[in-house]
Amino acid sequence: MSIERINPGARMSAAVVHDGTVYLAGQVAEGAGVEEQSRAALALVDDLLAQVGSDRSKLLSVTVYLADMADFAGMNSVWETWIDTANPPARATVEAKLATPDYLVEFSVIAAI
Amino acid sequence: MSIERINPGARMSAAVVHDGTVYLAGQVAEGAGVEEQSRAALALVDDLLAQVGSDRSKLLSVTVYLADMADFAGMNSVWETWIDTANPPARATVEAKLATPDYLVEFSVIAAI
Amino acid sequence: MSIERINPGARMSAAVVHDGTVYLAGQVAEGAGVEEQSRAALALVDDLLAQVGSDRSKLLSVTVYLADMADFAGMNSVWETWIDTANPPARATVEAKLATPDYLVEFSVIAAI
Repeated sequence: MSIERINPGARMSAAVVHDGTVYLAGQVAEGAGVEEQSRAALALVDDLLAQVGSDRSKLLSVTVYLADMADFAGMNSVWETWIDTANPPARATVEAKLATPDYLVEFSVIAAI
Repeated sequence: MSIERINPGARMSAAVVHDGTVYLAGQVAEGAGVEEQSRAALALVDDLLAQVGSDRSKLLSVTVYLADMADFAGMNSVWETWIDTANPPARATVEAKLATPDYLVEFSVIAAI
Repeated sequence: MSIERINPGARMSAAVVHDGTVYLAGQVAEGAGVEEQSRAALALVDDLLAQVGSDRSKLLSVTVYLADMADFAGMNSVWETWIDTANPPARATVEAKLATPDYLVEFSVIAAI
């Protein structure tokens, strides 16, 4: 079974495809608040999914990391307009500090292709 | 390859099945302490697994999030009586605040069907 | 579809194989700092992958938990020499306290076999 890697870099690939499933690197983005960062990070998710022939209707499981759970409602306001509401993934959301204090939210995605 | 979604809602599905693997949404439950919450959340896991034709003997990987690692022993006391001891999953347990301060433990589950 | 479990114990298996994918238990190791612990924990990953006929060139997705994000650079210095740079996994790194204060880093691994 072959493994396809998108944008392999020194630390990670942006996405890895194996046997009909794609695993994305955790996606973060700069932005002035959690809503702006969520929109930008989820646009990166869209881009990566498109590169492997998938899209947001094929999400299987997403782990959402929030640097501060006070941003839960803000993240959800963007999330709920972004997902394919007929095909939402399983999801878990937990509080965890991210790689730099600038990042407020990170999305770790598993999808079907 | 088809994708089956259980209880798709505005934010997430309770479970998503793809190619013989099921991904559950993170399961939490109300309760007076970590043991009571663990029992109730793991009962929800049982219910969801049953809905897709799986059960606790087919767990592949579980991530356990504890709001306070001081509850590690309490969670484990319930966990060890809940799992099929002949067929335990891979597991990682880390400390992370959850969606509300009322929640002490969350279980993120991947299983075979 | 059969499930193979490596070192099933009272709480977890060290690794679980299903349908060409292996899920490892979160790997931690004692050590005097994050670099030493990362080297030792990633050696445990190597051992487990070898037991199921996989290796670090087949990593799909890794979640790295750091007890203190101040150890990000130290962990990466070991990580970047450990991974197969032609075949890096998807990765997410977040801050989370681990089972005991002695542990500085934990690696949660999904790989192909």
